[in-house]
Amino acid sequence: MSKFVEERNDNFFSVRYEIDRVLYSKRSPFQKVEVVQTKGHGRMLLNDDLVMVSERDEFVYHDMIVHPVLLTHPNPRRVLIIGGGDGGTAREVLRHNKVEQCDMVEIDGCVVEACREFLPVTAEALSTPAPRFSLHIDDGVKFIRETKNEYDVVIVDSTDPIGPATPLFGREFYRDVYTHLADDGIVVSQGESPYYNAKTQHTMVQILAELFPIVRYLNFTNLTYPGGLWSFSFASKKWHPLRDFSEERMREANLKFRYYNADIHRAAFALPSFQLDNIGAFLKE
Amino acid sequence: MSKFVEERNDNFFSVRYEIDRVLYSKRSPFQKVEVVQTKGHGRMLLNDDLVMVSERDEFVYHDMIVHPVLLTHPNPRRVLIIGGGDGGTAREVLRHNKVEQCDMVEIDGCVVEACREFLPVTAEALSTPAPRFSLHIDDGVKFIRETKNEYDVVIVDSTDPIGPATPLFGREFYRDVYTHLADDGIVVSQGESPYYNAKTQHTMVQILAELFPIVRYLNFTNLTYPGGLWSFSFASKKWHPLRDFSEERMREANLKFRYYNADIHRAAFALPSFQLDNIGAFLKE
Repeated sequence: MSKFVEERNDNFFSVRYEIDRVLYSKRSPFQKVEVVQTKGHGRMLLNDDLVMVSERDEFVYHDMIVHPVLLTHPNPRRVLIIGGGDGGTAREVLRHNKVEQCDMVEIDGCVVEACREFLPVTAEALSTPAPRFSLHIDDGVKFIRETKNEYDVVIVDSTDPIGPATPLFGREFYRDVYTHLADDGIVVSQGESPYYNAKTQHTMVQILAELFPIVRYLNFTNLTYPGGLWSFSFASKKWHPLRDFSEERMREANLKFRYYNADIHRAAFALPSFQLDNIGAFLKE
Repeated sequence: MSKFVEERNDNFFSVRYEIDRVLYSKRSPFQKVEVVQTKGHGRMLLNDDLVMVSERDEFVYHDMIVHPVLLTHPNPRRVLIIGGGDGGTAREVLRHNKVEQCDMVEIDGCVVEACREFLPVTAEALSTPAPRFSLHIDDGVKFIRETKNEYDVVIVDSTDPIGPATPLFGREFYRDVYTHLADDGIVVSQGESPYYNAKTQHTMVQILAELFPIVRYLNFTNLTYPGGLWSFSFASKKWHPLRDFSEERMREANLKFRYYNADIHRAAFALPSFQLDNIGAFLKE
């Protein structure tokens, strides 16, 4: 019998990945953190038995949490990442030359330690000293409340709303994000599954609609999140993800992408009818 | 320990669905056919242990194999479905009043029998006598070779290219489809996963590009196919899926959809970069 890791889902199904071996396993103050070598999906990070990233498909998530927002905002100089301990989001943010300062606040030093050692494909940015990049091992909720900084873009790259990430799905947190965003700032957040987490999506979009004049959702699809289809929320004070997205700016950025492209940018904001039935009333513009 | 059905995948992972009971299980001349009552996804049809449809997400697949093509073609009077034994595709085709005749050719009478009895949500059309609808239990490859009919739209709603469906992914079959399509006909086919079946997609698009002036792929995403993201091929003699799609025609059809809508129509034809790297060179127009 092969060894495997198993992700169980409330909706009465589970996914088993065959593995060669466990590379890292530690119980941090926040969660169980593991890196395993799978047979089919490269190395994989799991927090509390939930798949966070795999080498095979991490490019999808990291393309889509970073590039739509950074190519909508015409001048994203100061970027804050909350969460994102595997480093993949920071890696993609730092590919944009317009970014002058990227701060990242990850609550769990253990995740950073595990990825630095066993997931270099995403954690490269966390290990390379760069004048544009600062990593803080700290509580993102506290950081955003107390910081004196103002950001053009905030990216909430969180785990699910259980355990340490729960407050990152709350009203107070988003009030603080709003306060520390520039007058034309944008916040993008990990937004769960339209199929399996309809209630979370409904709450998130409601909170964002109370604060921001432009609120949209975007979808993408990867291999290792339950059901495949997944969402980010997109809330903006000024720039619109379709009207202010520019293919010319995209060409100037001169980046290659494995998932993202101009057609995918526009397509990502098209939502299936059942998802619109759930959150459409709160989308703005 | 709960009972479950398990779908194993070549890529070293498996998905287990918890079930209450097995409603139907028979070995037909072509495959093992089962209907089970799951705990989280309603009833589910499996052929040779691969999930074909579940009550929870069948609307996605059936919306996307039918409505993009029937709302691109301005006058789809004669439709042929090859495969589609669960009946969901026929159900959606028959919602279009412009369709005067819908023929369906399913090779495995056992699938039809199982769905008629245990999956009425999709098989309704197979049980209701309708002057517009004819069901043939026959080999689709033979049927398309020998028929005297000409079709406006052919829909190849097949299983994976293993077992009985293998010839449905071949060059000869598509030559016969081309011959029996009207001068402005369109063929849409189940096109596998961009992530896990890149080689199949490459072969399909190559075959279609030898025959048709317009060749595109469209993507959708459901819960029960491995990886979530899935594709249909779209090959057309005249009508273009984006230029000839009309929102006005869509309004006139006066249909409600749980997945499909006008934005999703356009978005579906936007392909991720890695998929374009694989098949982009063969897409036409």
